[in-house]
Amino acid sequence: MQGTTRTPSQPTTAYQPTDRTVPTRSPDRASYDKELVHSILDEGYVCHLGFVRDGAPVVLPTLYARVGDRLYVHGSTGSRPLRMTGAADPGLPVCLTVTHVDALVLARSAFHHSINYRSVVVHGSAYDVTDPQEKRTALDALVDHVVPGRSGDSRPADKKELAATAVIRLDLDEVSAKLRTGGVNDEPEDLALPHWAGLLPLRKGYEAPIADPGLAPGTGLPGYLSAL
Amino acid sequence: MQGTTRTPSQPTTAYQPTDRTVPTRSPDRASYDKELVHSILDEGYVCHLGFVRDGAPVVLPTLYARVGDRLYVHGSTGSRPLRMTGAADPGLPVCLTVTHVDALVLARSAFHHSINYRSVVVHGSAYDVTDPQEKRTALDALVDHVVPGRSGDSRPADKKELAATAVIRLDLDEVSAKLRTGGVNDEPEDLALPHWAGLLPLRKGYEAPIADPGLAPGTGLPGYLSAL
Repeated sequence: MQGTTRTPSQPTTAYQPTDRTVPTRSPDRASYDKELVHSILDEGYVCHLGFVRDGAPVVLPTLYARVGDRLYVHGSTGSRPLRMTGAADPGLPVCLTVTHVDALVLARSAFHHSINYRSVVVHGSAYDVTDPQEKRTALDALVDHVVPGRSGDSRPADKKELAATAVIRLDLDEVSAKLRTGGVNDEPEDLALPHWAGLLPLRKGYEAPIADPGLAPGTGLPGYLSAL
Repeated sequence: MQGTTRTPSQPTTAYQPTDRTVPTRSPDRASYDKELVHSILDEGYVCHLGFVRDGAPVVLPTLYARVGDRLYVHGSTGSRPLRMTGAADPGLPVCLTVTHVDALVLARSAFHHSINYRSVVVHGSAYDVTDPQEKRTALDALVDHVVPGRSGDSRPADKKELAATAVIRLDLDEVSAKLRTGGVNDEPEDLALPHWAGLLPLRKGYEAPIADPGLAPGTGLPGYLSAL
C-alpha cells in the first residue's frame, strides 16, 4: 500500500524477522527497525501483556519500561502473571504489545475504513528479576517512563516496598513494529462518490496538571512537568 | 483504596464474576456492571486480542465493535486469528482487552506512582460469523464504532469485499472492568516531602479533520464529524 512501506534497515540496526514476526497480511506495513520499535515503545504508557493460563490466553494491561534492548514490567508479588513468572524455571512465554492510534481513516467505501496506528509486538519469555541492582534500575525506569526525570524527584522504594514489588524482564529479540500511515486508499471507481473522506487525527498530549491538595508548602510545579 | 471502590450493581445489570474475572490484586477496583463495561468498550477504537498459537500467547491490536452483549472483530480472511477461528469447531479461546489511560498519577513516593485507567477484559471463545445478515450487521457496527453514523454515509461492502472479510464474534459473558480513579495515595509519613504530587490528565478527543485532496466537488464535512 502506498505511503506505508518503509525502507529496509541496515542489519545492525534491525531485529531479525522470524516466522511469527512476519505478518501474513500487509507485510509491507511491518518493520524491524530498532529505532522505530524503540520510539513506539517509549511513547506508550500501557502495554498489553499476554500469557497462557490453564491453556487459555490472558491479556492484561500493565505499565512497562524499556532499558536498552530489554523491557521491564512490574506489579505486586501477588499478581497472577508475576507469580507465574517467579514459579517458572525456563521463563513464562509472553507476548507484549503496545499500540498507538494516530488517526481514524474515513474512506468513501465501508471496506476501506481503517485507522492509522503504530504497534510493536514482542514475543519471548519473561523472567523474574532477582538481582537487587537490576531491580532498582528497572523501578527507576518504570517511573521515568511515565514522566522522564521523575525518579530523581520522588522518594525511592524502601525495603518493604521493594519486597512487595515483583519485576519481570523480557528481552527485545523477537520483535516487530507494524504501522499504517498516510491517507485514504479508496478504489478508483469510488472517488467520485459524494461521501466525505479523509483523516480524523486523535489528540495527543496532556491537560493541565492537577496538584494534590496537600502539597508541602512552597512545592511548585517541577520543570520536567511544565515542559510537557 | 478510597475513591476507587464502586457500589455493587444489581444482579440483573451485572455480569456474573468467575474465577478468572475476580482479580487477585485490588479486587475493589473490579466491576461487573454492564453499563460501565459497555461504556468502556464503546469508547475504545482498538482492542488487544489474545489467543494461543503453538502453545504460545499472541496479542494483536485490532478494531472491534459491540452490538448488545456481543463483540465483533473483523479482518482479512488471510489473517492468523481469523483463519484459526474458521478452522476451530468449538471456537477459538480468546481474551479481548480494551484499556483507556486517563491520567498519570504522580505520588511523592516512587512506589505509589500509578495511572488512572479503565479497562475491560473479556474471556471466551470466538466464532466465525457465517450468517450473511449478521455479518452485514457486524460490519456496519464496526464502521459506526469508529464514527457513529458513518455506515450510512459510505458505500457498503460489495460481494467481493464481503468474501474477503472475515468476522468473528465473542459473547460478553465472562467479562469484568477494572479501573483506578481519584487522586494520589501517598503514605501519611510522606505527605510533608517536598516533591510535587498530583494528576497529569491525558488529552482526549480529535484534531481538525483532514479532507482527502480528491473529494468530489461540493462534498462538505458531514454533521456527525463537525459534531465531534
